[in-house]
Amino acid sequence: MQKAWEGFVGGNWERHVDVRDFIQRNYTPYDGDESFLAGPTEATRRLWDEVMDLFEEERAHDGVLDMDTDVVSTITSHGPGYIDRPLERVVGLQTDRPLKRALMVDGGIRMAVAACESHGYHVDHQIVDFYTKRRKTHNAGVFDVYTPEMRACRHSHIITGLPDAYGRGRIIGDYRRVALYGVDFLVAEKRAEKAGTQKHMTEAVIRHREELAEQARALEELRELGRIYGLELGRPAQDFQEAIQWLYMGYLAAVKEQNGAAMSIGRNSAFLDIYAERDLARGLLDESQVQEVIDHLVMKLRMVKFARTPEYNELFSGDPQWVTESIGGMGVDGRSMVTKTSYRYLHTLENMGTSPEPNLTVLWSTRLPEPFKRYCAKISIATSSIQYENDDLMRVYHGDDYAIACCVSSMRIGKEMQFFGARANLAKCLLYAINGGRDEKTGEQIGPKFRPVEGEYLDYDDVVEKYRDMMAWLAGVYVNALNIIHYMHDKYCYERLQMALHDEHVHRWFATGIAGLSVVADSLSAIKYARVRVLRDETGLVTDYEVEGDFPKYGNDDDRVDQIARDVVEVFMKYVRETDTYRRAVPTTSILTITSNVVYGSATGNTPDGRRSGQPFAPGANPMHQRDTHGAVASLASVAKLPFRDAQDGISNTFSIVPDALGKHGGVMFSPDELDLGDVNIAGIDFSKADFSLESHVDCACAADASAGEGQADRP
Amino acid sequence: MQKAWEGFVGGNWERHVDVRDFIQRNYTPYDGDESFLAGPTEATRRLWDEVMDLFEEERAHDGVLDMDTDVVSTITSHGPGYIDRPLERVVGLQTDRPLKRALMVDGGIRMAVAACESHGYHVDHQIVDFYTKRRKTHNAGVFDVYTPEMRACRHSHIITGLPDAYGRGRIIGDYRRVALYGVDFLVAEKRAEKAGTQKHMTEAVIRHREELAEQARALEELRELGRIYGLELGRPAQDFQEAIQWLYMGYLAAVKEQNGAAMSIGRNSAFLDIYAERDLARGLLDESQVQEVIDHLVMKLRMVKFARTPEYNELFSGDPQWVTESIGGMGVDGRSMVTKTSYRYLHTLENMGTSPEPNLTVLWSTRLPEPFKRYCAKISIATSSIQYENDDLMRVYHGDDYAIACCVSSMRIGKEMQFFGARANLAKCLLYAINGGRDEKTGEQIGPKFRPVEGEYLDYDDVVEKYRDMMAWLAGVYVNALNIIHYMHDKYCYERLQMALHDEHVHRWFATGIAGLSVVADSLSAIKYARVRVLRDETGLVTDYEVEGDFPKYGNDDDRVDQIARDVVEVFMKYVRETDTYRRAVPTTSILTITSNVVYGSATGNTPDGRRSGQPFAPGANPMHQRDTHGAVASLASVAKLPFRDAQDGISNTFSIVPDALGKHGGVMFSPDELDLGDVNIAGIDFSKADFSLESHVDCACAADASAGEGQADRP
Repeated sequence: MQKAWEGFVGGNWERHVDVRDFIQRNYTPYDGDESFLAGPTEATRRLWDEVMDLFEEERAHDGVLDMDTDVVSTITSHGPGYIDRPLERVVGLQTDRPLKRALMVDGGIRMAVAACESHGYHVDHQIVDFYTKRRKTHNAGVFDVYTPEMRACRHSHIITGLPDAYGRGRIIGDYRRVALYGVDFLVAEKRAEKAGTQKHMTEAVIRHREELAEQARALEELRELGRIYGLELGRPAQDFQEAIQWLYMGYLAAVKEQNGAAMSIGRNSAFLDIYAERDLARGLLDESQVQEVIDHLVMKLRMVKFARTPEYNELFSGDPQWVTESIGGMGVDGRSMVTKTSYRYLHTLENMGTSPEPNLTVLWSTRLPEPFKRYCAKISIATSSIQYENDDLMRVYHGDDYAIACCVSSMRIGKEMQFFGARANLAKCLLYAINGGRDEKTGEQIGPKFRPVEGEYLDYDDVVEKYRDMMAWLAGVYVNALNIIHYMHDKYCYERLQMALHDEHVHRWFATGIAGLSVVADSLSAIKYARVRVLRDETGLVTDYEVEGDFPKYGNDDDRVDQIARDVVEVFMKYVRETDTYRRAVPTTSILTITSNVVYGSATGNTPDGRRSGQPFAPGANPMHQRDTHGAVASLASVAKLPFRDAQDGISNTFSIVPDALGKHGGVMFSPDELDLGDVNIAGIDFSKADFSLESHVDCACAADASAGEGQADRP
Repeated sequence: MQKAWEGFVGGNWERHVDVRDFIQRNYTPYDGDESFLAGPTEATRRLWDEVMDLFEEERAHDGVLDMDTDVVSTITSHGPGYIDRPLERVVGLQTDRPLKRALMVDGGIRMAVAACESHGYHVDHQIVDFYTKRRKTHNAGVFDVYTPEMRACRHSHIITGLPDAYGRGRIIGDYRRVALYGVDFLVAEKRAEKAGTQKHMTEAVIRHREELAEQARALEELRELGRIYGLELGRPAQDFQEAIQWLYMGYLAAVKEQNGAAMSIGRNSAFLDIYAERDLARGLLDESQVQEVIDHLVMKLRMVKFARTPEYNELFSGDPQWVTESIGGMGVDGRSMVTKTSYRYLHTLENMGTSPEPNLTVLWSTRLPEPFKRYCAKISIATSSIQYENDDLMRVYHGDDYAIACCVSSMRIGKEMQFFGARANLAKCLLYAINGGRDEKTGEQIGPKFRPVEGEYLDYDDVVEKYRDMMAWLAGVYVNALNIIHYMHDKYCYERLQMALHDEHVHRWFATGIAGLSVVADSLSAIKYARVRVLRDETGLVTDYEVEGDFPKYGNDDDRVDQIARDVVEVFMKYVRETDTYRRAVPTTSILTITSNVVYGSATGNTPDGRRSGQPFAPGANPMHQRDTHGAVASLASVAKLPFRDAQDGISNTFSIVPDALGKHGGVMFSPDELDLGDVNIAGIDFSKADFSLESHVDCACAADASAGEGQADRP
């Protein structure tokens, strides 16, 4: 440790794993501008060209270059793989050749087979046989336990996207620990934790001890992965290049073991900056060399891929990895956490062009250094590849060492994790309330046989009462289904390596989600403020609505309907909390369908707000398309009324800004400090240089950006 | 069902699984003698000769004829196997050829490898690799969780024989259900049970639902096993031969899936007799043909073998299967449950000679028909192959449809199961109490660092107080270790098929066990009634004792010491009950070391009763060898004082009777009805015909017989 830690300010972090303490004692805030940055090196240019060629070739091969069919991926399953070894400053691939998709089966053998088959590959029959008969998978476990009701809800899409056929993701290993401490230290810590558990062997203690044993084993495999690449991961990293290499090896081990829906990498820039500063001070590296290592790391992260099924890609509108890297933010002591390396991360978008991955996410605070804000705006304008999240809001809950998993899920690194839960379709739930649990598209009885509405016109109080009952039912089925899923994921597809890079006792979030909020708000508003006539088919099923008169619509800062939206979130969460959660995880929800709002909409019939059957929902917490007629500020104000307390896993607002829409041309539209809409905080984008119509995403209360999923960066 | 059940008296058993109801409404008690029995058929003689040749060949090959090394055993892993197909009235082998040992790995891959290696076979490296890296085993799970203290206790042998490296066994599937209902009905019942579980998905409910799904799946595999042999197991058995064949297929599926330490088969004679009576009445079979089918079933049961390690065989003094078949007993309505088929089972020992397996066990009641008692005595004298257990005692707890698992564990068939727990060495625990937790042989600190005894002489009150503390510690470690074992056995080595042949909600026994009881009783007696001087080594460790004066010894009907033995059992069970058990299983204990008393003794140093280090313990609840100097009745009376309430899993007394010892020659020594010693009941053996010195085993309160394990049947 002596050599590796030389020159660092000591503290508690030397005795126990405490990366935040290390960062706070050692990092150097940077208030300057981007003028210090270096362009790509020759090696970076050549290597990136080779990677671009590989991507090109991949596209030419229907999106997949090669797939493993007879090697099941483990941390140590493959020999070393390189793009172009002499050029690579950061090494390590998921398999033994670039872009070859690994075979990952613990989540479900049928999905692995389907993913291969969809690209014309065939999984070795012995492997299929083994994972069908001898080694059960997460997917098989879940479906053994689902109730017919859960299957029906899944089939009718009132609950959609459950992680029962893919990895749940949303767990961020603290990969910095690998660099700072080395694997030997971490293994010893895990062993010490195991030695210190309570001695009374309840089932919870037995499971906990087995998990700690598996975690230590996974760390040993990580050390072995290092050996495969000629790296001594047992000891701490001794310089900047090693720090990045060690950290990446930790992440690589995670993505070799798990193909979770979101494999986010954490919040590493301030941490890595400490190593960069030390090497620069020692004259070991110059700026160009520092940037080169970062570029090479980011290049590797751009290459992370998984074998996925067409259904998966449909659900997520693409093949996102959500390699989210959280950048910036403020410390709880008031210092900015922006460092030169924060710039270097964003600068990769200039050195190597735009890219949806890694999902570079700025933790935005009104108090961030002005030059950094301007640099962010500049890069956003140039690339549309930055996601912004509200640090001022999240810091209150999570302090200053949290990161974003996936698109909006905030969690303290190495201390909190999440049981991901996809989402319930609250718009469809409203239709079930109206139809007494029958599905509006098929007529099947999916929900409980409550009384349907009667008469020609909908009565607000009647519908609300029925809706509450139906939400209570839905929340129960939903939480119980998630309990099964996470029990089985822990049993058959446990994230050994990622959890090894957590503290012993983690806080678990139980992340439910809701879809169709604005449809529900507008529908209830229509019922309350206009007159809604129901149209029934020959079986009495309400299949359509006629709205007579106008009604307030969500997205116009009109409390009459915004209040309805808020109530729906609060009431649904109340019902979610009424069912015990697996491992006593703390229930939260998100309002977050960024891209799959299309899929949800297509599964939902006509709604009382006039929306036609099959029409997409608005994404996340957005107002319905073109209904927010009172301008951007009013639209954002409506969203801002949603209670973060009840949707702590994130509220997303996808927001397109064209200078025209704000009524001025060529000037600064607003600064974030001026536009304070309660919980909403808008990333400060300087439009003074914008001479084109910009479609970007402004995040609202831990909001999300679809760009990483949709590759919108390509769109101006 | 119509055809299969024709002629049977109907009842509740027709609507739901209720084999007891079927038996009670349909069986025919038999009070006659053995004169109706038929000798072996030509087919039986020829087939048995072939089997004997195979056994001979097996012995010539160091005890193992052949081993699977590349096929992991499942219910359907093998094609059909035969001894001599045209001759076999009952078909089905564990693998595809007779006596070839199956490869069973879920319990532990290292044990499977060791078992093969010990006979010069080598398990396929891919299988080893897979079960090491990709499919965890019971053994691996347990050792991931054990505490250092548990490992130390295991290493020092204060806890011995834990089922952490072999299958726990002691679960009896109700194989009769396969015959009476057919597999289709049973699968439907399991599905209905699953549909009827509570909807709130706690971990317990999730596990339960997954188990029911696995049970249904195992039943479907059983049906497939039938297809492999050309049998329609989906439907009920239609005649006697099918009833036996169906029942055996159920058992065969169990032993293809599990190599539990005791794979007992239940209580089948009255059940099967109903089918025999029906076929005889219909003129479909004659007595010779009925006996032939039974002989062939028993022949198959004699051939059940597992791949075992030398350590296992050492622990169990051989390679027992404990294919225990419980015969006779009384019904709770007062009718004898002895049928002609009870005779036919025992008669197999005449038709095919003596054999330790299946472990034919007579459920003895004073009220059994006299001719049956006499026939049992006759067969015992001729073969020493019958085990006797006290039905009058057990019927009170379990009713009249229980059976014995292994040697003494009584459980209601299909309604109760047991978590087997090997045993704690209470004699060694006494030495730990004296030495403050240090092992008397190695000096290592194994137990807690309590104060050791001081001074030259042991003080009774001081030792008892210390012993209680040490027993409390030992009971805690022991129960916690068992909690781990059974958690992991359920997780990695669940008895799918056996549990499929149980009711949905089973009663679980948590079967601890104790060894060295008589050593403890005599040691404490010596300390109390004589003077015991301690001898210490240079480290202060008490390694030997000098007893000055005489003291009462357990086994002489002397309350002064018998009371001590009783107290030890009661106190230890009190401590056992103080720790929560896995799945809320009900704690019991057994006093039962029938053969491994030698191993336990060899691991235990000098004891204060004068027993020398390494000297074997007495088996089970027996007095120490040659210390019961007041005759058989006094010896038995001492044992009879042990509280069955606190040792409900069984108290065994291995008792050798030579006519001389009882003081008379050539006459009836005693009848069971005359010798009533409280809880003790002695099997009535008629010595009038004994003209030789008989070494047999008389069972005492659910007692056990070592013959099945030791093959003592060969000894006169």
